[in-house]
Amino acid sequence: VYQQIRDRLQHLITSGALVPGDRLPSIRSLAQSLQVNKLTVMEAYDLLTAAGLVTARQGSGYFVDLLSPTPASLTSRFSPTQDVVLWETQGSPFFRYYSQYVQAQYQAGFIDLSCAYPQQLPDNLSRITRRVAGLNESLHHYDLAQGLPRLRQQIASFLVQIGLEVSPEHLMVTTGSMQGLSLVLRYFLQPGDWVVVESPTFSGMLAILEQLQVRIIGIPMDANGMNLELLAQYLHSHRPKLIYTISTLHNPTGITTSLSHRQALIQLAQHYKCPILEDNVYEGLHADPAPPPLKSLDANVFYVGSFSKTLQPGLRVGYIAVPSQHFPALLEQKLLQDLHSPTLPQAIVGEYLATGHYRRHLQRLRTMLKCHRNAMLQALSTYFPADARWTMPAGGMFLWVQLPNRFAGVLAAVHQQAVDAKILYTEGSLCFPARQGYPAIRLSFGNESPDLMEKGVAGLGEILARLAPPSTNAAD
Amino acid sequence: VYQQIRDRLQHLITSGALVPGDRLPSIRSLAQSLQVNKLTVMEAYDLLTAAGLVTARQGSGYFVDLLSPTPASLTSRFSPTQDVVLWETQGSPFFRYYSQYVQAQYQAGFIDLSCAYPQQLPDNLSRITRRVAGLNESLHHYDLAQGLPRLRQQIASFLVQIGLEVSPEHLMVTTGSMQGLSLVLRYFLQPGDWVVVESPTFSGMLAILEQLQVRIIGIPMDANGMNLELLAQYLHSHRPKLIYTISTLHNPTGITTSLSHRQALIQLAQHYKCPILEDNVYEGLHADPAPPPLKSLDANVFYVGSFSKTLQPGLRVGYIAVPSQHFPALLEQKLLQDLHSPTLPQAIVGEYLATGHYRRHLQRLRTMLKCHRNAMLQALSTYFPADARWTMPAGGMFLWVQLPNRFAGVLAAVHQQAVDAKILYTEGSLCFPARQGYPAIRLSFGNESPDLMEKGVAGLGEILARLAPPSTNAAD
Repeated sequence: VYQQIRDRLQHLITSGALVPGDRLPSIRSLAQSLQVNKLTVMEAYDLLTAAGLVTARQGSGYFVDLLSPTPASLTSRFSPTQDVVLWETQGSPFFRYYSQYVQAQYQAGFIDLSCAYPQQLPDNLSRITRRVAGLNESLHHYDLAQGLPRLRQQIASFLVQIGLEVSPEHLMVTTGSMQGLSLVLRYFLQPGDWVVVESPTFSGMLAILEQLQVRIIGIPMDANGMNLELLAQYLHSHRPKLIYTISTLHNPTGITTSLSHRQALIQLAQHYKCPILEDNVYEGLHADPAPPPLKSLDANVFYVGSFSKTLQPGLRVGYIAVPSQHFPALLEQKLLQDLHSPTLPQAIVGEYLATGHYRRHLQRLRTMLKCHRNAMLQALSTYFPADARWTMPAGGMFLWVQLPNRFAGVLAAVHQQAVDAKILYTEGSLCFPARQGYPAIRLSFGNESPDLMEKGVAGLGEILARLAPPSTNAAD
Repeated sequence: VYQQIRDRLQHLITSGALVPGDRLPSIRSLAQSLQVNKLTVMEAYDLLTAAGLVTARQGSGYFVDLLSPTPASLTSRFSPTQDVVLWETQGSPFFRYYSQYVQAQYQAGFIDLSCAYPQQLPDNLSRITRRVAGLNESLHHYDLAQGLPRLRQQIASFLVQIGLEVSPEHLMVTTGSMQGLSLVLRYFLQPGDWVVVESPTFSGMLAILEQLQVRIIGIPMDANGMNLELLAQYLHSHRPKLIYTISTLHNPTGITTSLSHRQALIQLAQHYKCPILEDNVYEGLHADPAPPPLKSLDANVFYVGSFSKTLQPGLRVGYIAVPSQHFPALLEQKLLQDLHSPTLPQAIVGEYLATGHYRRHLQRLRTMLKCHRNAMLQALSTYFPADARWTMPAGGMFLWVQLPNRFAGVLAAVHQQAVDAKILYTEGSLCFPARQGYPAIRLSFGNESPDLMEKGVAGLGEILARLAPPSTNAAD
């Protein structure tokens, strides 16, 4: 009998009916409802615990383990069809998007499925901040343009853990990753140059590229990453000056490329002598170790990282790992932009890393995010159109939903109705060069509780069903 | 008799033999040495106190008042001869200069007459920092690109006190004034454009302009400010795209222009439709109220300010007052450079201003700096070549020494020997476009104690006398 109970619960978990973090019935209530001895239920729970599917919490009962295997039902069938985009025109909406987003933060009552950073304050960060603030004699001076030595040392240690060896001498602290990206782009690009980006990609990158008056090649992302066959074609035909890529937990799709994909990308870039700018700001949020960064395969890669997605965006602490031969010239550009980034935020992050808080914080964050991701996948299965497709990221804070083509004409209306219903999400069109792509939205699971996420996804599902109901023609 | 004593002491003070902050002899000792009654000395001291030349400090005795009129002996005979510089070539040494300067800070034992900010920590800043750090729930988010509303409100209130009315809506917080300058220059200038600067000027500005590949017109500074006749000629002949000026406590000369000079400059700029970028980072350090900023005479002026010179450079909090019609476009450029400046330093400065600490801090700082300035003027009179000339700034932290032409060939040797003797100062050549100007150095009195300043100036005087002694030929 206890094996039957075990099997039934195991099925509920692997099918996704019970998701990580859900509480199991108490031993007494399950025994009563099944009309069995309490010891029988306890035996079943012990088996589930031993299998890693269930955790007992002292005094609270039994819960589905946060790291239990992902239910087989929560699969990704993401497989969009799209063309390469060549973009020479102006009109990035990033500025308007960012401004509206920040304004919305100041208002209450929104379900925020747009925000790409976790909103709760990391444990101990306030305490570390007050402690560092008390030491600010040393934070008084003009300081090195490349940033505090202690912070760079800590970043180098962190990078070793994700498979990237960089000397602190080749690290440059920046005011968020945005400054890192902006510096590298300005360093390489002249107006009229061609640049490769993934399509879709980070909308802020499109805005910087537009400001620099460069021309964009948007290479489609499929489920495995940037389409390398198309990349090879366009490297050959357009001789771009830079490849911009987000290999781990790609924004906005959440896709992490494989080691072989990374190796092939590096080979292509080397063959065409095209520099790579690797944006890896979500690295720390990958559930299992991700393949090593592109930069670990080729020291000539420019690598941008950040603490905005893991600690606090308001600290504005990011960094670049710079190929040694380019370091002095890029450092001069940083100096001439703002001399150096503010010292206090650097010291806070340095101390948070040095004391081991950051490592523990990332562990907690990853566990929480996996649990949230599964809750969102569950909600999508329940409330979204049956013919929608989505990615299943191995971590991070958002996923990407590909909507059927019947939504092409109604996306603006969907967004407006969502805002009216106090649900925020990121419009997919922002992420496509020239806004040319299939109908899609980015949904964040980093911010709201599973309950509110479900409420938000349900609300969106309703709006989608109302504005473009599935055809009732069986032949459609 | 007491009037004789009064007259004698007054002469010592106005001649500069006694400088502000100096202690007067005790009543008893002066009475003994002059063989008079103590009451006689007391009467003399009372007269000096009533005249504002002397202050009694409870239990410590009598001191030359910190704000006593400047001794007539400490005059400026600054009046250089120089040509307009037209600069199209490359090679700004700012990057090397800044790096060496920061490295020297990490070493002990230097007398630093280079540093252009006061090194002691402002009263209560640590406390304010810890308090703000404890509130950092609200500092968590991505925030407005233009900066925290509370800080912008406080800056607007401060600006009203110096005669400039600006709406907080037209203020943009930047990462130090360097980012403000850099943003405005990038906004206006294309490679090849002509730009007017004062000659000498802020060396960092020359470096940014060089990076932007623009061409520079260096208009000579005389004792009253930029030579406006020459400016008019070059506005007409070269049609520059921007005028960069530091009207108050000009860097590096310390000169503050008069209201009529400001009005004439504005008229010229308006006539030639040339925008003005006003750099006013030293404004808060002017001993008496300075004439109102250029921007108060013409709302189209771009105005850059900073808290680096008055609070802490490491906070990197500056701002731009932007003409309303340019605000949205410039804000987008800020956003694409780093989204926004870090929140915590902004909140600290905002709180320091809101609590009134900043106003009191500036008062103390100005008093201290005036006293330090006089000590440096005294030391220059004593130790520098008789034919050297210097400016006498109405505040701020540095003055400018024009050396006789016989030093033209030995300035590099002077600097090297000074560094060997552990004395830092700013080489004047850094501040001239194309390094074309008369022999000069900038000396800071913001950093070291009067004793160390005297030691440093004496050391420099020795080096100068050794490397280029005055000619012994009476006809020379």
